[in-house]
Amino acid sequence: MSPEQPTGQPAAQVLVPVLAVVGVGLIGGSFAAALRRAGQAGRVLGVGRNPASLADAQAMGLIDEIVTPQEAAARADLIMLATPVGSLGPMLVSMRDHLQAHTILTDAGSTKAEVVAAASQALGDRLAAFVPGHPIAGAERTGPQAADATLYAGRTVILTPLAQNPPQAVQTVRAAWQACGAEVLDMEAAEHDRVLASISHVPHFLSAAYMAQVAEAADAPLRLALAGSGFRDFTRIAAGSPEMWRDIFLSNRAAMQTELSALRAVLDRCEAALAAEDGEALQQWLQRAALARRGWRKEAS
Amino acid sequence: MSPEQPTGQPAAQVLVPVLAVVGVGLIGGSFAAALRRAGQAGRVLGVGRNPASLADAQAMGLIDEIVTPQEAAARADLIMLATPVGSLGPMLVSMRDHLQAHTILTDAGSTKAEVVAAASQALGDRLAAFVPGHPIAGAERTGPQAADATLYAGRTVILTPLAQNPPQAVQTVRAAWQACGAEVLDMEAAEHDRVLASISHVPHFLSAAYMAQVAEAADAPLRLALAGSGFRDFTRIAAGSPEMWRDIFLSNRAAMQTELSALRAVLDRCEAALAAEDGEALQQWLQRAALARRGWRKEAS
Repeated sequence: MSPEQPTGQPAAQVLVPVLAVVGVGLIGGSFAAALRRAGQAGRVLGVGRNPASLADAQAMGLIDEIVTPQEAAARADLIMLATPVGSLGPMLVSMRDHLQAHTILTDAGSTKAEVVAAASQALGDRLAAFVPGHPIAGAERTGPQAADATLYAGRTVILTPLAQNPPQAVQTVRAAWQACGAEVLDMEAAEHDRVLASISHVPHFLSAAYMAQVAEAADAPLRLALAGSGFRDFTRIAAGSPEMWRDIFLSNRAAMQTELSALRAVLDRCEAALAAEDGEALQQWLQRAALARRGWRKEAS
Repeated sequence: MSPEQPTGQPAAQVLVPVLAVVGVGLIGGSFAAALRRAGQAGRVLGVGRNPASLADAQAMGLIDEIVTPQEAAARADLIMLATPVGSLGPMLVSMRDHLQAHTILTDAGSTKAEVVAAASQALGDRLAAFVPGHPIAGAERTGPQAADATLYAGRTVILTPLAQNPPQAVQTVRAAWQACGAEVLDMEAAEHDRVLASISHVPHFLSAAYMAQVAEAADAPLRLALAGSGFRDFTRIAAGSPEMWRDIFLSNRAAMQTELSALRAVLDRCEAALAAEDGEALQQWLQRAALARRGWRKEAS
């Protein structure tokens, strides 16, 4: 038993008697910590590629035990796959033949259509056990040290349930996220990917393209020395993990290209207004943008 | 005498015995408040187009007296022009024939080449009295209520002195900004405009274009409801004053077009890598951007 699990409490009373987390970093580690804090996780198994990181997670009490993917599949009631989108398929293949009949799988990937396709290919007739999900809770920090039992409090988690999912499986995943303090929303996978391309992936794309352009200017040091708070906020996301964002971009390529095309059309209009010194058109555009931004969640801005 | 000005203190001992501020909002009002707090401003005259705003500024003690441009020219030792770039020329024309021989003028405009051209045309053989400046201290708030004596503490102020400026005039403007707590840097006007286009005007252009694109999407309410902290920071600047940014864009059009072209070239490369699903190229780009951003002023990020 872990020190966090009171002895004498029947495991059957918790929502997830045995939880397995694949990838015990910020996202997976916080999920384990939050479920544990809510008293809804019994034993927590950790799976990962980095032994040092897993040892840290165990030392910190995020997981009770380090296991192989096969052991996790054979023992867990719920498996949270908090791995890069690109490595989800191979992980599911290695687990598939070891899953119990009642095992539920879910993920935390930032895109959903490709995840569903990969899961479908990897799991075959066990696909119904997989409930796709995405917690909208980014942070620049990574690794088990960044795990935080309160990361999901008040955040939104989107589930994109499959037609094949038994209602009870979806309900268990929903209840687990709610126990973490999150608000859970159901959407279609394609809708999720379109919306996330717009509000998350395209801003990262623009911020990183802009940052690269500034950094390759001949007078970059002078520019960076004079940059202020607007620059700071506009470029903050560009510091994010290159590997993670590469995978997200590749995984959500089609939706991003659609959004980037729409953005190009707006940029073309704005640049044409600038070239024509059309103050009226510039102001109308800036006014629309300012009103939209000022009207957005006043409490969050 | 204003309540802030101790009676009995000889006006000649302060750096600016009579200060005139044209446009007593965030920028001009904060300059007056900071100089006054440093004990370096005697009487403060306020000039502006909005009587209600001037009355507020006087009630708040930012200015001692509301005067016409002509009176300000005839009485002030230093005149701070904190007006939109577009209205600087007409204001200088109305002041020109009333200026004292020793009067120094300076401004706070976000672009400098066009300001210098406008000042040159308006002031003619009195151009030497005008020392162009730009405090890099933005804020979303506007009006005299936003004025803050500490706004410039630790901020950078760029001066782009003219060949005609007497050293004493430049030194007085420099000393005034230093009394406000700012660090003062000298640059060429063209260099200033190129750097500011890059680190301030282009980010605003991109953020506002992006915000307009999201706002005009058919499912904009859903997008905005799910947008998180990355979106929040990336779009914060888009809430800024449409009129101010229209004027800045028009005033710095050429430098912005150069920067926007360079950015388009980077965007073209990044979008081509995305279309080709070239993970290696995407990662190299994201890595460059992330390293540049992580290396930028760690204390400010």
